[in-house]
Amino acid sequence: MIVVMKAHATPAEIEAVVERVQQAGFQAHKIVGVERTVVACVGEERGKEELAQLEFFSGVDSVLPVLKPYKLAARELHPDGSRVDVGGVEIGGKRLAVMAGPCAIESAAQMQGAAQAVKAAGAHMLRGGAFKPRTSPYSFQGMEHEGLLLLERAGREVGLPVVTEVMDPHDIERVAEHADMLQVGARNAQNFSLLRRLGKLNKPILLKRGMSTKLDEFLMAAEYILSGGNTRVVLCERGIRTFETATRNTLDLNAIPVLKQWTHLPVIVDPSHGTGAEALVIPMALAAVAAGADGLMIEVHPNPEKALSDGPQQLRPARFAELMGAVRRVAEAVERTV
Amino acid sequence: MIVVMKAHATPAEIEAVVERVQQAGFQAHKIVGVERTVVACVGEERGKEELAQLEFFSGVDSVLPVLKPYKLAARELHPDGSRVDVGGVEIGGKRLAVMAGPCAIESAAQMQGAAQAVKAAGAHMLRGGAFKPRTSPYSFQGMEHEGLLLLERAGREVGLPVVTEVMDPHDIERVAEHADMLQVGARNAQNFSLLRRLGKLNKPILLKRGMSTKLDEFLMAAEYILSGGNTRVVLCERGIRTFETATRNTLDLNAIPVLKQWTHLPVIVDPSHGTGAEALVIPMALAAVAAGADGLMIEVHPNPEKALSDGPQQLRPARFAELMGAVRRVAEAVERTV
Amino acid sequence: MIVVMKAHATPAEIEAVVERVQQAGFQAHKIVGVERTVVACVGEERGKEELAQLEFFSGVDSVLPVLKPYKLAARELHPDGSRVDVGGVEIGGKRLAVMAGPCAIESAAQMQGAAQAVKAAGAHMLRGGAFKPRTSPYSFQGMEHEGLLLLERAGREVGLPVVTEVMDPHDIERVAEHADMLQVGARNAQNFSLLRRLGKLNKPILLKRGMSTKLDEFLMAAEYILSGGNTRVVLCERGIRTFETATRNTLDLNAIPVLKQWTHLPVIVDPSHGTGAEALVIPMALAAVAAGADGLMIEVHPNPEKALSDGPQQLRPARFAELMGAVRRVAEAVERTV
Amino acid sequence: MIVVMKAHATPAEIEAVVERVQQAGFQAHKIVGVERTVVACVGEERGKEELAQLEFFSGVDSVLPVLKPYKLAARELHPDGSRVDVGGVEIGGKRLAVMAGPCAIESAAQMQGAAQAVKAAGAHMLRGGAFKPRTSPYSFQGMEHEGLLLLERAGREVGLPVVTEVMDPHDIERVAEHADMLQVGARNAQNFSLLRRLGKLNKPILLKRGMSTKLDEFLMAAEYILSGGNTRVVLCERGIRTFETATRNTLDLNAIPVLKQWTHLPVIVDPSHGTGAEALVIPMALAAVAAGADGLMIEVHPNPEKALSDGPQQLRPARFAELMGAVRRVAEAVERTV
Repeated sequence: MIVVMKAHATPAEIEAVVERVQQAGFQAHKIVGVERTVVACVGEERGKEELAQLEFFSGVDSVLPVLKPYKLAARELHPDGSRVDVGGVEIGGKRLAVMAGPCAIESAAQMQGAAQAVKAAGAHMLRGGAFKPRTSPYSFQGMEHEGLLLLERAGREVGLPVVTEVMDPHDIERVAEHADMLQVGARNAQNFSLLRRLGKLNKPILLKRGMSTKLDEFLMAAEYILSGGNTRVVLCERGIRTFETATRNTLDLNAIPVLKQWTHLPVIVDPSHGTGAEALVIPMALAAVAAGADGLMIEVHPNPEKALSDGPQQLRPARFAELMGAVRRVAEAVERTV
Repeated sequence: MIVVMKAHATPAEIEAVVERVQQAGFQAHKIVGVERTVVACVGEERGKEELAQLEFFSGVDSVLPVLKPYKLAARELHPDGSRVDVGGVEIGGKRLAVMAGPCAIESAAQMQGAAQAVKAAGAHMLRGGAFKPRTSPYSFQGMEHEGLLLLERAGREVGLPVVTEVMDPHDIERVAEHADMLQVGARNAQNFSLLRRLGKLNKPILLKRGMSTKLDEFLMAAEYILSGGNTRVVLCERGIRTFETATRNTLDLNAIPVLKQWTHLPVIVDPSHGTGAEALVIPMALAAVAAGADGLMIEVHPNPEKALSDGPQQLRPARFAELMGAVRRVAEAVERTV
Repeated sequence: MIVVMKAHATPAEIEAVVERVQQAGFQAHKIVGVERTVVACVGEERGKEELAQLEFFSGVDSVLPVLKPYKLAARELHPDGSRVDVGGVEIGGKRLAVMAGPCAIESAAQMQGAAQAVKAAGAHMLRGGAFKPRTSPYSFQGMEHEGLLLLERAGREVGLPVVTEVMDPHDIERVAEHADMLQVGARNAQNFSLLRRLGKLNKPILLKRGMSTKLDEFLMAAEYILSGGNTRVVLCERGIRTFETATRNTLDLNAIPVLKQWTHLPVIVDPSHGTGAEALVIPMALAAVAAGADGLMIEVHPNPEKALSDGPQQLRPARFAELMGAVRRVAEAVERTV
Repeated sequence: MIVVMKAHATPAEIEAVVERVQQAGFQAHKIVGVERTVVACVGEERGKEELAQLEFFSGVDSVLPVLKPYKLAARELHPDGSRVDVGGVEIGGKRLAVMAGPCAIESAAQMQGAAQAVKAAGAHMLRGGAFKPRTSPYSFQGMEHEGLLLLERAGREVGLPVVTEVMDPHDIERVAEHADMLQVGARNAQNFSLLRRLGKLNKPILLKRGMSTKLDEFLMAAEYILSGGNTRVVLCERGIRTFETATRNTLDLNAIPVLKQWTHLPVIVDPSHGTGAEALVIPMALAAVAAGADGLMIEVHPNPEKALSDGPQQLRPARFAELMGAVRRVAEAVERTV
């Protein structure tokens, strides 16, 4: 940590900072510059966030952290990248993992249709939402536990592991009974009660980035799960909120190579939420693969024009098959398989 | 709802839209323009979000909603504004409501010191966090239930109602036993499991705006609580996330007069989180009052340089007393009292 | 244009709107809904922005435009996409156009080294900045006219057309004497004096998106040039400003397929500015190609560690050659050539 | 400047950094930490931005600047704040400066009506746009030089100095003949050609913040003018671009107290552009004054419903008089006068 003093800080003010830093167990190096003095603090910064209080000290201009705040998520821990197994599907290896299925689970027929279609096109996992976080209390909120059963059955019939969202910490056990992977949605990316409980679960977690989550905060959210003991975390970029209104969100593909530098966790991309428009899903899925994503999550619905939620961004089965073909070609170009 | 067709939409495409709209129980008015046709749909739009699927129809360019999506939060319901009583303190009337106290509850001595200081300076309610949503799992997470007891006792001793945050739906009952008002933090602004349960509670709720929550989404979050039957909701602007890094958040005071037009719910402002810097709290508190806020939430700590969280934005008691004096003068200038 | 009246608008207020709309030469269709009335206006909206004043009328809630504000940039004008020729290099066809070279022109040796390197690796155009828009007045501002001569000579020697930025409307003629294509930088994306004069020039223009320019505003900036008579405009996505600070900008690749739907103009991508970090340039260049970009602009410097501006985002020649190889493979996967 | 090395940087990599830093004339202090080494560089950082190239060195993680990049704008230069005289009106003193008038100059009658109205209500300066930066080339672009004459005459008749925007560097002289103060608009906030020429002018400048300009970049834009020799610069906050669409811009009032800490330059606020809606102008004007602004710029039009640009945000004369009364009361509450 570097403490930058104000231009006219007095020697007494500087000493007060040095003393406080030493009390916290750090070594303090005072460096006297032309215009100002800085105090460089040597020691383990993490868990010492009370040192941010130094900003409050008289004569202090700013406090600059030097270390990244996450440990278990850091790339250094597994320089070759970690791989997460979900019911036999490996995420993070050379082969891309494609998860596909409807936004919301609506009926047995819809789930069966979706499951057969995505399996036939080559998807590796089946998705579907039983608990739906909807902006409006008057919107369809999901089939809840009945939906979980439909999802589980549809996945089993076609032989695909299933992933679904959990919103309430107290639903975790029940969801985990039926799903192979639990998803944390963008609106819960900093729901720390939920994250902490998922850290105690023995199931892989798909953690979506929040709409306004910076990448270091995203890794701190993963760190909540990892520090609880659950090491099977997969990150998912799904678009951030910006001033641009032409698309529902701004898909931040820069995040892929940055996360690959910072963390060993696998990173997949959801171009359906990242764009909000069916016509944009294929080009952005290809872009994600070219940028180095370890997989994709794609919304596919047998009849998107009848969907109970997010119809405009769901692909028909034929379009999804087209997507898989194109993804295969781009994957090969970057030395991956599908 | 207005459905805008593409420039070269065929008559058959237009008819398909008209038919779908009528099936949903709307009247459809077709208006043929110079370049394109629009279909105006007359009827109750809320709860019919499946009509967003029209965007998926062939020949459709875009779908523009006409009605606001909230009902119970709408200004029309109580054109004079609603007032919320919290343990005898009225929020939303001519008198401003000032809530003050430390970011986190740390000890009995700290809470007593804070309570006496804010009471002496004229605050109307005591705040303090027992459950702390922290970005890092390695940071102080709050004193939890022990903290609730300290808060309740400190409030009772000085005769101030207390407000504190709840993060987990399953803590609601226990928190409600000790607090006069429950706060939903910015990170849970779209935690719908939490909001839905608070709709069933017989206690007033302080709902903070999320870091990237648009104002209409903010009112939809309130609508979750209101539609559950709990009508005592107070909104709190606390800063949004933007590109500007000079301050922790960008306090969006435009939100006050906009919300006053759109909703009957009282609106208060938290300049401590809205700026993240102690030196900015007083000017922004005054600005909030001048813009028409119904109250303020201010972080006050007896020894901010020893605080376990968010020290740099907490005021010392003497500065808080100064703030109250200045707020009083500005409040009078805009015909409010403190 | 759709005028939405307030819930309690009076018949007189509605009539006043209808009258104003008719005065402006539109037909007005009044549609009486359950909660509110809307007035649909049929006619040519563009150039009638005074109708935005209707928002000021008593009883009016909002005014929703129906038509896109641009004409000459609209896809409908050239449904197959337009192609721009720059000194024999076609942009917008099946073959990608790659422009490469240093951020700033620094010396004859640097330009020759860069020109030979990018030519050898397969680039189609040479870039280099003679006038540099720098945030600080104390930073290197470019070699100006001397730089233009070096750029022109280096391009001629290796047989590549050259592109360079123009910042001041009154430099246009001099820059046009030496460059094959003139670039408008992100900070001048809404410098309408500059755009208007470029509309009168007989040279192709590379128009970069501004840091906070929405896509429809981007096309309106192009429309300034097109409406002056210059139809040779190429758009360049180069990253937008968001809350994320892990990268210098957030490269918005969603913009590519959106622009391809909205406009016939070619679209290229600048991953050097879009990321600000050399290590991210290759993955994001590949992503841009996979998403459908018509070309790339890449910063290449013979000695980036000695560069006078933006060193951290410039590639060494060997890395650029690696990029070209990878781009070629991804281009083939999406049926393009390089 | 602080250079943070990567966790596994080799001694040779560290030495290379130290050497480069010393070559640039800095002292280098090497601090060996638990996980990583940092190199603290002592010396004048400004104008040495080539040291950002250190990020490119092998083994370097990041480079953190310590000094603010501006000098002449820095508060330290004039700790009591500077005052700018515009035709006898002082900006930056105890008395607020209110500039008012129409968005665009449209006719002699309109300008006279506006001038008399704003003078009668107590404004200190007259504003009006002769050159209008419009998003669409098809919109009214201003009366240009004819408009300047109307503005000058209207100001002279009522005895108010006038301020107007200049967009093209080559119009500066002509505009300066007729105006007492020249305004740089938000879209030109980083038009460095324009800023540099204004640095040579002997007239006060009103510099508006750009839509996505960070506060330190805003001060660097001012530094361009100051470093040219023109010390009479007034800053104007006018709203930034964020995800919120309820208002045209997000007025960032946090900027006022931050700028007051960082710079000696006076700061005024434009709530008309900052909100885009007439009904929000008064509350936000009051908020700006309460937050410490040195003045206001308000759009006033005799007949806003007939305005040729930005009608919805312009006040009628009667509303402006109401604003002035309310501003006077809030100003007194914060010990300012009007």
